[in-house]
Amino acid sequence: MNFEKKYSNLGKNLKSSLIRELLKYASVPNAISFGGGVPDPETFPRTELAQIASEVIEKEYAYVLQYSTTEGDSELAKQMLNLLEKLYGFENLSEENIMFTTGSQQALELAGKIFLDEDSFAIVEDPFYLGAASAFRMRNSKFIAIPLEDDGMNVDVLERKLKDLDAKRLISKVKFIYVIPNFHNPAGVTLSLEKRKRIIELAEKYDLLIIEDDPYGLLRFEGEYIPSLFKLAEIGRVLLLNTFSKILAPGLRIGAVIGEKEIVRKFVLAKQGTDLCSSALTQRIAARYLERYDLVQQITPTIRLYKSKKDVMMKAFEENFSDIKGIKWVNPKGGLFTWVTLPEGFDTLEMFEIAKKKLVFYIPGQAFTPDDRISSSMRMSFCLPPHEKILEGVQRLKEVIIEYGKLKGLI
Amino acid sequence: MNFEKKYSNLGKNLKSSLIRELLKYASVPNAISFGGGVPDPETFPRTELAQIASEVIEKEYAYVLQYSTTEGDSELAKQMLNLLEKLYGFENLSEENIMFTTGSQQALELAGKIFLDEDSFAIVEDPFYLGAASAFRMRNSKFIAIPLEDDGMNVDVLERKLKDLDAKRLISKVKFIYVIPNFHNPAGVTLSLEKRKRIIELAEKYDLLIIEDDPYGLLRFEGEYIPSLFKLAEIGRVLLLNTFSKILAPGLRIGAVIGEKEIVRKFVLAKQGTDLCSSALTQRIAARYLERYDLVQQITPTIRLYKSKKDVMMKAFEENFSDIKGIKWVNPKGGLFTWVTLPEGFDTLEMFEIAKKKLVFYIPGQAFTPDDRISSSMRMSFCLPPHEKILEGVQRLKEVIIEYGKLKGLI
Repeated sequence: MNFEKKYSNLGKNLKSSLIRELLKYASVPNAISFGGGVPDPETFPRTELAQIASEVIEKEYAYVLQYSTTEGDSELAKQMLNLLEKLYGFENLSEENIMFTTGSQQALELAGKIFLDEDSFAIVEDPFYLGAASAFRMRNSKFIAIPLEDDGMNVDVLERKLKDLDAKRLISKVKFIYVIPNFHNPAGVTLSLEKRKRIIELAEKYDLLIIEDDPYGLLRFEGEYIPSLFKLAEIGRVLLLNTFSKILAPGLRIGAVIGEKEIVRKFVLAKQGTDLCSSALTQRIAARYLERYDLVQQITPTIRLYKSKKDVMMKAFEENFSDIKGIKWVNPKGGLFTWVTLPEGFDTLEMFEIAKKKLVFYIPGQAFTPDDRISSSMRMSFCLPPHEKILEGVQRLKEVIIEYGKLKGLI
Repeated sequence: MNFEKKYSNLGKNLKSSLIRELLKYASVPNAISFGGGVPDPETFPRTELAQIASEVIEKEYAYVLQYSTTEGDSELAKQMLNLLEKLYGFENLSEENIMFTTGSQQALELAGKIFLDEDSFAIVEDPFYLGAASAFRMRNSKFIAIPLEDDGMNVDVLERKLKDLDAKRLISKVKFIYVIPNFHNPAGVTLSLEKRKRIIELAEKYDLLIIEDDPYGLLRFEGEYIPSLFKLAEIGRVLLLNTFSKILAPGLRIGAVIGEKEIVRKFVLAKQGTDLCSSALTQRIAARYLERYDLVQQITPTIRLYKSKKDVMMKAFEENFSDIKGIKWVNPKGGLFTWVTLPEGFDTLEMFEIAKKKLVFYIPGQAFTPDDRISSSMRMSFCLPPHEKILEGVQRLKEVIIEYGKLKGLI
């Protein structure tokens, strides 16, 4: 049958992500990939999780093997609220302020459903987290992209654009400001305290919701903790998205939406028709894990590992890139990613053809532009390759840059 | 902040399901509930699953605790394809014909995304499975409801309506026929072989996709297996939805979409932005379970248990309802549900107030009408209450019917 005629407009427009297509090459032997943003499996507490999984299936089978409520496991909610209070001083939150999702991706998708119409605007960062982009794009609404600087979103540009939209009487169509405050994916940067406060002020002035997506906040290598926008603002202003993917294990597929009760209730209603409920089993495993172990203590070796890999990469950049004029990179204070920007004229997507030959992989910046434009930047993750491969990979990358630069007369 | 102004049209229209609201009452002490459609937890193979879970986390941690591909676990795909071949003679299927979802609910939601626009029509059954209704409603498209009979959808009505839509030049807006062929939820009926063939003929004539949702097919108590529409039709005509929720455990949240490669590929693209991937852990647990155990043999005691409960309920109906003039009920050949229709004039939603007092619970038929109209029917599940409670519950229900009937002058 002719499927094309049957697809919806959304169905027709669905395309494979650039990352997926590119990373197909990354699994060839001898390749060194800085492409994927997945945690190192050696950091997963497998012995503890194996023990807990077996126990909860044996003893709590009537709960863990059954349908869960759409809201999620209340035992996990208790543990999560305790953790948020202990770590960040979040107070006065109850189970009605939290809902668990099938990974953070689902939270983004539900946010799209709940807030965005075709004539809506979402304010996003440039570069833009790809998962949020694919979730919000399904709603076919418009993006207002705000460039990122070393200390996060350019708030002057944000202010100007909001003023402009207000003048054009379009401000009521602006639904939210989407921000990854800590160790941005892909840009590696962290939003300063001052800018957090200014974003909140602007959100208050124009009555906008802030969606604060914080998957990496706990993976801080160095520097002072900066309070979350959720903590800094009045309740209701900020919807906080969290996940266990980077601090426990992505295979559990647990994300969390934390916010004002009314809005969390909307997420529950949207989730009902979307996947009914997330796995009771994986949620209860996480709950018992948080109950038995001190998460912060448990992830200390992970943070140490990622920091040491990040340091190796920074050192390799210094050693290899210093003589490439105009190159810049971010030294991230945590998380999984750094962002390398090559001199003007470079197109990292085009350059990828050479990288494929030299068996070194990154994600071209174009994948993260809200408007699919050519980019001289690239995302590099340091968390997966072993230390000795990081240096070798950066050396290969230098060769790639030189070859491409010469070919294009840029160097 | 004023959330109402921020919601999308979809967000504004999200409402809690009637079932959810009603079943809040079902957990009071001494209540007997025929409401929920959840499996009996005693049927879950907990010892086997506990063992497997612990093993796969210890030994396959790098896979099961990591992000999965969007398509899902290829080990599970192999096992599932083997099972489908063994049970139903499905041949020539490869891994590209299958994608795993976060429960069947997600498959329905993705189908909505891929096929339905606001001006689309979906052909559905009346009564209509609530999960499909909530998934499809999010797309804001229109339903064409075809009444169910004792042997499934009234195909004469279907034929007439299609002819009518064709005459009105609207046939291209009709995207699919959604059908639960075996032991229908909520109606308990099974689609006859003859009608399956006629539906396929009509789908071919008007070039429509058939979405065959078969969560209960393996739970047959009696009667001959009837070939699935997927098997009867040419490849591509039918998209088959399956789930492990009723034959293994809902807590794993594993559904499957089986169909033509091109269409499965579309599902993969839609799932990417929706929840990225389902849990690798629960998928690999199911894969190893299917590898080690004979599923059909394993579920034999479950089928025997449900059949014995169904028989108790049918006997209780005979004994208690025979003197209520005009009452009818379905004797299902499998699955979890029967459908009781009271004489004209009864409103089972209104009657629910009396049921609440008498501590017996069912789902009023109105919850399953595509147009939210008053219904004299109710869905009753026999799978959860113990045998002795089924008789007592039916006795209570008779009192409810008599009291309501007298109050309304219907008896």
